[in-house]
Amino acid sequence: MINKNELKYIQSFAHKKHWAEESVFIIEGPKMMEELMASNFVIRQAYATKEWIETQPYKPHYVTEVADFELDKLTQLQKANQVIALVEKKQIKGPIQLKGKMTLVLDGIQDPGNLGTIIRTADWFGLDQIVVSADTASCYNPKVVQSTMGSILRVDVVVADLPEFIQSAKMPIYGAVLEGKSIQTTVLAKEGILIIGNESKGIRPPILSLITDPITIPKYGNAESLNAAVATGIILSNWQH
Amino acid sequence: MINKNELKYIQSFAHKKHWAEESVFIIEGPKMMEELMASNFVIRQAYATKEWIETQPYKPHYVTEVADFELDKLTQLQKANQVIALVEKKQIKGPIQLKGKMTLVLDGIQDPGNLGTIIRTADWFGLDQIVVSADTASCYNPKVVQSTMGSILRVDVVVADLPEFIQSAKMPIYGAVLEGKSIQTTVLAKEGILIIGNESKGIRPPILSLITDPITIPKYGNAESLNAAVATGIILSNWQH
Repeated sequence: MINKNELKYIQSFAHKKHWAEESVFIIEGPKMMEELMASNFVIRQAYATKEWIETQPYKPHYVTEVADFELDKLTQLQKANQVIALVEKKQIKGPIQLKGKMTLVLDGIQDPGNLGTIIRTADWFGLDQIVVSADTASCYNPKVVQSTMGSILRVDVVVADLPEFIQSAKMPIYGAVLEGKSIQTTVLAKEGILIIGNESKGIRPPILSLITDPITIPKYGNAESLNAAVATGIILSNWQH
Repeated sequence: MINKNELKYIQSFAHKKHWAEESVFIIEGPKMMEELMASNFVIRQAYATKEWIETQPYKPHYVTEVADFELDKLTQLQKANQVIALVEKKQIKGPIQLKGKMTLVLDGIQDPGNLGTIIRTADWFGLDQIVVSADTASCYNPKVVQSTMGSILRVDVVVADLPEFIQSAKMPIYGAVLEGKSIQTTVLAKEGILIIGNESKGIRPPILSLITDPITIPKYGNAESLNAAVATGIILSNWQH
């Protein structure tokens, strides 16, 4: 059973003002819930149907049982999926650690689905952090959270002043551009920064000028550009090669 | 000026029943229009604002000038973008030609955005045809058309009985699966078939058994799977390598 205030509170996560400002974000579905319970994120509250609770060895203290019709009112998905949890956003403290790894930098990725797919792709290739410009879509947008398919629980997304951050990094700064060195003949260093730009404008000039190693995915056909998530996947695949 | 019947007709393309059955599909925006005019597709009718017409050397015979408020009523985009055209669907005749090229096969791709991105990615890597199962999203879904960013005009999408089609192909049948030969150590033949499966179920059993060369994108992190369009891009990038 859920009370009116809780219902209103969770429904308000459909609005940007709310999910941007709250200290918690929402995850939905048994698969995401399983990964959440295995992570070190703090679950503030969860609402689950009897069906979900019965799959657990015991009912966790933070779970309130709700009826199917109640979950239908709470969900932001097209179809409610057994469980909804309110999770505390991670507080990332101190300077960003760059040693010995590749850090992905996103300059103005606007589309929530694209951002979610990029986070998931970064996770596949073993990256554990992404640094984003303030105008990149928020990783707490419910659409982003869902499209990461759980990777949001493993990859830290940090908002930073990109020029300042990039200038302080003493390592190769790779940038995906239309005219650079072919990724097929470039061996990417294990430690570095990889910048992916906005879907239509690419990497913006102040950041473009900080790139030490412009790289390109060779084109064999006629499409004008590649989707940002696809480009990220191809470059990270070459990096891990 | 546009009359009521035309208005109703174009608005009806918002509904699947309509865009699936009509012999025309809709494209929008000056960029897509430019590529359309350079293609061999037949434009049955177009509606454009004065702003767009003034960018042209002359007003094409198929263009009706409309006011901004009229275009706003016609558009399927969030914001109307100067021009909307009704384009005749291509009739693809005769058997599918497989000689000397890679043909992409999609087994049940459901998400329109994913399908559009896959078509665009195939175009980037020089593929000119994709064969899809009947339950794959329609390439004439307005969301798919827009997300191809013009590639729908260059890549043929053919619906076929996949098991029958694949069985008739005498060439390597590559399939993207979770446990196959690493694409990093596999040299893909220039001529072949590449099968990409459904977003959550992968390639289905009757088709799985027809794969001669199962291939895998090695995983270095913890994501459970890669997005279908990202996987397609990584494999095609390796194929062109």
